[in-house]
Amino acid sequence: MREIGLEHLDDIARGAAILGTGGGGDPHIGKLLAQSALREHGPVRTCTLDELPADATVLPVAMMGAPTVMVEKLPSIEQVSIAAEALAGYLGRELTHIACAEAGGVNSLIPVVAAAQLGLPLVDADGMGRAFPEIQMVLPTLYGVRATPMSVADEKGNRVILDTVDNHWAERLARSATIDMGCSAMISSYAMTGAQASASLVPGTISLCAELGALVRQAREEHTDPVDAVVARLGGRRLFTGKVVDVERRTVTGFARGTARLSGLDGDTGELVLRFQNEHLVAEHDGEVRAVVPDLICTLDRETGEAVTTESLRFGQRVSVISAPCDPRWHTPEGLELAGPRYFGYDLEPQVGAAR
Amino acid sequence: MREIGLEHLDDIARGAAILGTGGGGDPHIGKLLAQSALREHGPVRTCTLDELPADATVLPVAMMGAPTVMVEKLPSIEQVSIAAEALAGYLGRELTHIACAEAGGVNSLIPVVAAAQLGLPLVDADGMGRAFPEIQMVLPTLYGVRATPMSVADEKGNRVILDTVDNHWAERLARSATIDMGCSAMISSYAMTGAQASASLVPGTISLCAELGALVRQAREEHTDPVDAVVARLGGRRLFTGKVVDVERRTVTGFARGTARLSGLDGDTGELVLRFQNEHLVAEHDGEVRAVVPDLICTLDRETGEAVTTESLRFGQRVSVISAPCDPRWHTPEGLELAGPRYFGYDLEPQVGAAR
Repeated sequence: MREIGLEHLDDIARGAAILGTGGGGDPHIGKLLAQSALREHGPVRTCTLDELPADATVLPVAMMGAPTVMVEKLPSIEQVSIAAEALAGYLGRELTHIACAEAGGVNSLIPVVAAAQLGLPLVDADGMGRAFPEIQMVLPTLYGVRATPMSVADEKGNRVILDTVDNHWAERLARSATIDMGCSAMISSYAMTGAQASASLVPGTISLCAELGALVRQAREEHTDPVDAVVARLGGRRLFTGKVVDVERRTVTGFARGTARLSGLDGDTGELVLRFQNEHLVAEHDGEVRAVVPDLICTLDRETGEAVTTESLRFGQRVSVISAPCDPRWHTPEGLELAGPRYFGYDLEPQVGAAR
Repeated sequence: MREIGLEHLDDIARGAAILGTGGGGDPHIGKLLAQSALREHGPVRTCTLDELPADATVLPVAMMGAPTVMVEKLPSIEQVSIAAEALAGYLGRELTHIACAEAGGVNSLIPVVAAAQLGLPLVDADGMGRAFPEIQMVLPTLYGVRATPMSVADEKGNRVILDTVDNHWAERLARSATIDMGCSAMISSYAMTGAQASASLVPGTISLCAELGALVRQAREEHTDPVDAVVARLGGRRLFTGKVVDVERRTVTGFARGTARLSGLDGDTGELVLRFQNEHLVAEHDGEVRAVVPDLICTLDRETGEAVTTESLRFGQRVSVISAPCDPRWHTPEGLELAGPRYFGYDLEPQVGAAR
């Protein structure tokens, strides 16, 4: 896609919810903000990683916090550009492009808002190829790109600039600031050159969101199975279809953590357990691990194919759980150290290629 | 005093511990850092509030955190100027003077370190006339001076710049960052003009520290009572002399909080209870309130007159508890709202003039 207009937002939001793997924040909020920004400023130009000049100044923007809170404490539209402008001022450099840190959930559309407000092109790419809960969990970390200087801004007007010794410290200090700000804030981090962006980002993921969203919509219109369409496009597989029979959810240390239990339907038997920290991390079928982070685990409505986020999972929902392969760089030793199962506290082997 | 040399540091540290009212951090640490800085850079020039040019750029520097931690996790000497330089860079202004936010404890000497390292004069004044535990508790807040932009720096190399909607938000966000950094950090805040400094700071408090320290030293040399000398200079009174029989102390929410109980000696009977949050807040004699914040409550060794900090209070110590009046601006309605007993959770009347 060459530009993002109002007509694309529904599909992008629908597809982003899928790549959100249960987290990433409700993309409906991002859609509302993007609608407002595009109505005021017109469509946003996009550019591919191939087209990006090596000396470009690329700034990813995102929303940080607990999705459970984001749906109740809506961000202001000004807040999005305030975070970017605060950081540009600190860097003393003129921004040339806006990028997406996390293609999943609300954060696929927050960069659209920033690009519209600042009149800059948006890079069609992201730092994860999915959603992850912590700041250091982006591929640029593997390429030595620093998360800081980064900015954190709230809707009240408070701004924080961080300059840290590593990307884990950026996560730690930004998380505390976000919690103080009410568990949701706008951030700008990983300012990078065009060359760094081209090397480290996952290409085409904004387009992929739009494509996934369109596939789900078209399957419904054509009365085919939208879940099948998503599985086929992502090269994944359907793990389980079932009814949600229990959800245990806590907002702790700034995250939405919990467990969901599904009882089999449509020929699936037994129980599937999903464990999440903002995003789904592990899927276990009757005690056997079927999929695990960094691969994607997504919960989709059995009928409509719409992604169901961890904060909206509730008793009685009928969902299909699918898995899909992540960007292969997440399966390198460095990638797994950053976002593999052991980082999240699960003593499990990552399942290389299991989802393919 | 026109300049501060190595020969002044003992007296300043001794006097600062008294104005620290039990808190403010152990001035011994500040003395070690200042000795090192003065040995390298020579004496620090001082200037009075009257001499300060109205258009000066004055930057107070301080250490923030729990005194219980500061004595175990020593700051680096570089850390002091890093905080000041990070903020000067953000402000885009050249600093002309260093100031003292808090005359009590370690923070009377941290500005000496910064002034020596940066080659700038030190203003002989401070923002409290004593020690207080929170950032917004300085007289400049009453004059509308903003705490932010402020910087927070740790010994690892992490730096945070805050820009907040009010000074309470500066406290909140800086406290979280300080806790993440290990409960002790170096800060620069309340950058102000010379005119703002002249209006809002308490004049002559660095000299007062030196004078109090000298009085205690001389009384010991002359075999007179050092506690009497301090009481007379501060226009205060001796509340109680007793033996420490119990200390309960916790490091919570980034502060050293607790209670100490003293059993009477030297003709004093009954029990005196001291309640503190870094600094002494309330002194109760057999259930009757004898002194309360914002007035000064200080614990001095009965024999030597040396101040005993809340983190070094321990069973068996023989101390005299004195009270002394604070800067009268703390007894205005705005001052009491900021640092009166009710702010600290004590439903007590402030004792205007009680200590005089």
